[in-house]
Amino acid sequence: MMENTEKIIPVHLNQNSYDIYVGTGNLTKIAEYLENCCPGYKHVAIITDENVEPLYGIPAGEILSQTGREVDICVVPAGEESKSVEMTHLLWQQLTENGLDRKSVILAVGGGVVGDLAGFVAATLFRGLRFVQVPTTLLAHVDSSVGGKVGINIPQGKNLVGAFLQPQGVFIDLHTLKTLDARQFQAGMAEVVKYGVILDAEFFAFLENNTEKINARDNSVMTSIITRCCEIKAQIVQHDERETTGERALLNFGHTYAHVIETLCGFGTILHGEAVGMGMLAATRLAVRITQKSSLPASQKHEITSDILSLYHRLENLLKKLHIPTEFPILESEKILHVMLHDKKTLNGKCRFILPQKIGSCSFQTVDDTDTIIAAIYSL
Amino acid sequence: MMENTEKIIPVHLNQNSYDIYVGTGNLTKIAEYLENCCPGYKHVAIITDENVEPLYGIPAGEILSQTGREVDICVVPAGEESKSVEMTHLLWQQLTENGLDRKSVILAVGGGVVGDLAGFVAATLFRGLRFVQVPTTLLAHVDSSVGGKVGINIPQGKNLVGAFLQPQGVFIDLHTLKTLDARQFQAGMAEVVKYGVILDAEFFAFLENNTEKINARDNSVMTSIITRCCEIKAQIVQHDERETTGERALLNFGHTYAHVIETLCGFGTILHGEAVGMGMLAATRLAVRITQKSSLPASQKHEITSDILSLYHRLENLLKKLHIPTEFPILESEKILHVMLHDKKTLNGKCRFILPQKIGSCSFQTVDDTDTIIAAIYSL
Repeated sequence: MMENTEKIIPVHLNQNSYDIYVGTGNLTKIAEYLENCCPGYKHVAIITDENVEPLYGIPAGEILSQTGREVDICVVPAGEESKSVEMTHLLWQQLTENGLDRKSVILAVGGGVVGDLAGFVAATLFRGLRFVQVPTTLLAHVDSSVGGKVGINIPQGKNLVGAFLQPQGVFIDLHTLKTLDARQFQAGMAEVVKYGVILDAEFFAFLENNTEKINARDNSVMTSIITRCCEIKAQIVQHDERETTGERALLNFGHTYAHVIETLCGFGTILHGEAVGMGMLAATRLAVRITQKSSLPASQKHEITSDILSLYHRLENLLKKLHIPTEFPILESEKILHVMLHDKKTLNGKCRFILPQKIGSCSFQTVDDTDTIIAAIYSL
Repeated sequence: MMENTEKIIPVHLNQNSYDIYVGTGNLTKIAEYLENCCPGYKHVAIITDENVEPLYGIPAGEILSQTGREVDICVVPAGEESKSVEMTHLLWQQLTENGLDRKSVILAVGGGVVGDLAGFVAATLFRGLRFVQVPTTLLAHVDSSVGGKVGINIPQGKNLVGAFLQPQGVFIDLHTLKTLDARQFQAGMAEVVKYGVILDAEFFAFLENNTEKINARDNSVMTSIITRCCEIKAQIVQHDERETTGERALLNFGHTYAHVIETLCGFGTILHGEAVGMGMLAATRLAVRITQKSSLPASQKHEITSDILSLYHRLENLLKKLHIPTEFPILESEKILHVMLHDKKTLNGKCRFILPQKIGSCSFQTVDDTDTIIAAIYSL
């Protein structure tokens, strides 16, 4: 049964190509997978967090130990605070002391925080180790584990330090959804909804039609959803691995505002996916305001605005049905603009946003009217 | 005059290709160079150290400011201690606060420490910025500025954390040799001698025949030397950019022992080049001992040993004529082996060395006889 339903999504990136495996109960096959994607490895360090360690870190470690390989488990505190320079420094030291060498493998078992942190450690220790992802949260399944962006936070902002490191493989086991708490699941669904808005109207409609099954974490519906998100992300990453052509930037829909929320509320207070949900709504309100202020003829303005508003209401409705919080927290304007100006996406001192026009159609725009950027945060 | 003598050494690495410029007084043309190799840049951060800042950092900054670009100068303390996680963290923060963005450029103006540190910052800030090298020490001219290895130290060892980041260009101005103190110059010459031993007997003989001119830093001889070293290094890096085929590993001749010296004496007490000089002699003594212990027929043993001994005496003699220290410091055996086992070059718990057989011919060997490794440190 399990074998029959496993899906394999290839990510074509020349010498950096790899496969994403999506299955149910397939974590039991991790030894076999690792053998295939990391030939000749003798030592693997599992990086995980204190919540995931007993559920999946230790079981994965036991399976791998049975192959005779040396296996270490490094456990970090759960939460965004672990994506710090200090934690990275500790891991560099611990892994060196444990005797890892250039042929060793780093296996990330956890959510986005663990994947980003472990990936950055793998990208930099000994100038680069092989890296494999076992994402255990919905957000990591559909977003952070695919595409090779790894990184950590500094006080100035999220993910300001990092690298591009494609993993040797990504192994998604749907069983991990069973142990995910409701808030984490809902936050992950915000990133799922994002794929619909930016690129796939049909997928957005599928989500609208399946909110009950999604909330019940129906295995078949969730398999379809995760597979589709990985396909979309793989396609984007194939076209624009290092975010140079602009296509990959579409994935940042909602993220300019989201990073402000995460930075100002303290990393981890509001989950990344939750901030993305709030950020998508704010960016959509910004799209309405920018259209209103544009020099287009009135009739065209009206038409575009009504498209964006229709999207806005469907988006808000879908987020609410999925129990994703939609209220932007109260923040000081000056601080908001300070964070935005230091965002990686900012260029030549101007903020850049992905602005939606209708479902499946968005564009990348530079916005220098800071009053409008702030006004869109709280009202249409 | 200046224009006529400028040499350009291309480094062919597909989309990572770049040129090395070797000239005298050519730092005055830095604005023009940067324009060519970093099209469209608007903001450049010069990273330099407190010694180099007044000599070359500020002058370069003034030239670049005249182009209307935004120019920052970040100054770190001189010396190996600056290649730390803490300094890296400070630079990440300072550059972000200064408003650098993804299109900005990091310009390293200094020796190997500045180049390695600035390069690692460039490789990781915003997941990678463009990076240009202006090496100002002989060691940086011939070795650390070419090839794309960047990195920092952790308490467990030198360069254990880093990345491969090819610069957009390397600009070598022979004028910088005039301000280099004698010890730094001599340490740089140890790396020059290394190129002769590992790959080029003719070049080694040229060095033997020109020790007086070298010690006088004769412009014409030093131009030939720096150009030849860059050519050799470029060739090796072209064949083996990420040190996977073994060819690039040849450059590590003397480095297994050198890293032990640097780690145990405290980074910076003994200069890297000085440690490489001592390390090459120790590795050559190790080559003699390994040959003696081998199962080869006696006549063959004798022949190989006499080749290595001839190399040993020429090498020792040349180092002495160039005023490069040759005495290995007194260190505890247990500590030596601990550092070696955590060296990046160690694989599956076995130490690896480049062992010379004759000038221009070396091989990469795994050595597990730790008594012999230790004995070779102090005696033939």
